[in-house]
Amino acid sequence: MRYELYYWPRIPGRGEFIRLALEEAGADYLDIGQSAEHGVPAISACLDDTQAPRPPFAPPFLKAGDIVVSHVANILQFLGPRLGLVPEDDEAGRFWVQGLQLTLCDWLLEVHDVHHPVGVSLYYEQQRAEARRCASVFIGERLPKFLGYFEHVLSRNPQGDAWLVGESPTYADLSLFQMVAGLRYAFPQAMQRLEPENPAVSALAARVAERPNIAAYLASERRQPFNEQGIFRHYPELDG
Amino acid sequence: MRYELYYWPRIPGRGEFIRLALEEAGADYLDIGQSAEHGVPAISACLDDTQAPRPPFAPPFLKAGDIVVSHVANILQFLGPRLGLVPEDDEAGRFWVQGLQLTLCDWLLEVHDVHHPVGVSLYYEQQRAEARRCASVFIGERLPKFLGYFEHVLSRNPQGDAWLVGESPTYADLSLFQMVAGLRYAFPQAMQRLEPENPAVSALAARVAERPNIAAYLASERRQPFNEQGIFRHYPELDG
Repeated sequence: MRYELYYWPRIPGRGEFIRLALEEAGADYLDIGQSAEHGVPAISACLDDTQAPRPPFAPPFLKAGDIVVSHVANILQFLGPRLGLVPEDDEAGRFWVQGLQLTLCDWLLEVHDVHHPVGVSLYYEQQRAEARRCASVFIGERLPKFLGYFEHVLSRNPQGDAWLVGESPTYADLSLFQMVAGLRYAFPQAMQRLEPENPAVSALAARVAERPNIAAYLASERRQPFNEQGIFRHYPELDG
Repeated sequence: MRYELYYWPRIPGRGEFIRLALEEAGADYLDIGQSAEHGVPAISACLDDTQAPRPPFAPPFLKAGDIVVSHVANILQFLGPRLGLVPEDDEAGRFWVQGLQLTLCDWLLEVHDVHHPVGVSLYYEQQRAEARRCASVFIGERLPKFLGYFEHVLSRNPQGDAWLVGESPTYADLSLFQMVAGLRYAFPQAMQRLEPENPAVSALAARVAERPNIAAYLASERRQPFNEQGIFRHYPELDG
């Protein structure tokens, strides 16, 4: 099975959460947005296809044969059992992993909304004053709350604090790594202050980065750098 | 199986999306937050239990025997096959329903953020100026986009435009009904303008309201009115 990932090129963005799962599992996939042969026109063609019986609202979406799945958490839930990234034969465990993933997705949206509090159709420069207020609440309250929550989840895993659920990595662990990487880029000062209070989260991020397939991916050209077009943006004035 | 729903009382909020599924199916459930015997202390006790092996981040969460499931979309996905609210034996159909549900949840969050663009910890009155700007983008761009998307999805259903997927209601249809009901409350002027352009969405909302179990529920005291403590709030100055 060759998976096809549809996501905008030149930003890691939401697509990166899917890429990390595919890379960790060594899956065969085509990154449509980054492929010279397909690229943005192929994504736009899907979005503009008024005859599609099941039109996605927005990228990312994944094609797996005849199945089209959209939304990060939904795609990861689809891939989880296929890539060995969820507990086997454990329904409660799978819903727990997915609950964590949805919390991660909410957190990601809050990170995005710090630089876009008024609307996605406006530039950051058009909502700078609002973003500053938003950043102060995010860094003062929300960032410690989310980091502390995942630190606590790790401490409560009966199988130890290496991974969020059970004793091997799930897609939620890969996503938590990406959150930490992105937050370090966007809010380096805030993260420097908060990471020592949440050592198990930092240790998990390091553990993910050392997985052989992930390490090879991070060293490759397929791993795109964070930048100010994506979700995790570094604006020094927002890193209070 | 008696389900236990954990959600704050006195607002329909996110809990309402779960209640509608349980009510449509005539399921046996206990609304912990609204129960005189349990109420808020029971919810707080769960959230404050530092020994819980799988602590939820926030309500709503659902207990079903030993399983705890959190997040609206995750709970609905758990309940879907149990309550007959997803296509049977159709994996692609179920991921399609869940993709629609996640789009509905994103839409719901945008509705919330119109009156809380800076931060959830501040009152509306502390972010009124930002909310006004946010509302103008939401009503001008996002609301027509979301309504138009679901109108289009209905028009593309090969089984007809009565329901979003297949020929019987899924949990996503019930959630779309709740979105329309809430938006009519929060933004009556905008919805009066936009609904005629999206007749299949309005017709679906009417169809849900006429389902016998839903009609009985809506007429009961269990259905809580919208108010300015919830997600759908009517502030006339935001209904441009």
